[in-house]
Amino acid sequence: MLSNGGCPKTMLSIQDALEAVEGRWKLLILFSLSEKPKRFKEISREVRGITDKTLSKELKSLEANKLLRREVFSTFPPRVEYSITEHGLSLGKVLDELHFWGLLHRSIVLNDN
Amino acid sequence: MLSNGGCPKTMLSIQDALEAVEGRWKLLILFSLSEKPKRFKEISREVRGITDKTLSKELKSLEANKLLRREVFSTFPPRVEYSITEHGLSLGKVLDELHFWGLLHRSIVLNDN
Repeated sequence: MLSNGGCPKTMLSIQDALEAVEGRWKLLILFSLSEKPKRFKEISREVRGITDKTLSKELKSLEANKLLRREVFSTFPPRVEYSITEHGLSLGKVLDELHFWGLLHRSIVLNDN
Repeated sequence: MLSNGGCPKTMLSIQDALEAVEGRWKLLILFSLSEKPKRFKEISREVRGITDKTLSKELKSLEANKLLRREVFSTFPPRVEYSITEHGLSLGKVLDELHFWGLLHRSIVLNDN
């Protein structure tokens, strides 16, 4: 694909994608939810290094982008669960490629330092 | 791949990748350079919305991660060019998938609003 390097239309769609999954947390949160629906505290434990404030902000942004769903169950006390949507699952291949590339990057750059 | 959802080792490599290409600009800069080596001003024109200060910072970070190379040619005035490295080119599949997903995301979410 790098054959169409610099093409403005391709750049626009990459930009759209990057705006939706911007930062170092959103994809990790979705990856965690791809296993099963989870509660706030479970996500917070799995996505290492994220603060509660940031997690709360990221969950809202992901919900606005239809990448996850927030559900409140009328138990006592009420239980809140987050689950990945169909649209969120469509990021699977992006996550795949980031995973493979992350392994390569660690072997090339991170182990060098 | 979402079959191994939540796997801590996979999460770690995704995290490595996200740290190297974090933010909304780095991948766009690399995509622009995948066409051919470019000068600062050319990149700044193609990656719409980026400020010179941010571009300068991002170029340094990409160089530190061996994703691009900065070359100074001893012309008068000296010419500085940035080119993508082999390691930078290895992000091709990530960019591919982001491009495809960006198109999908636009059709599903952005056109809805």
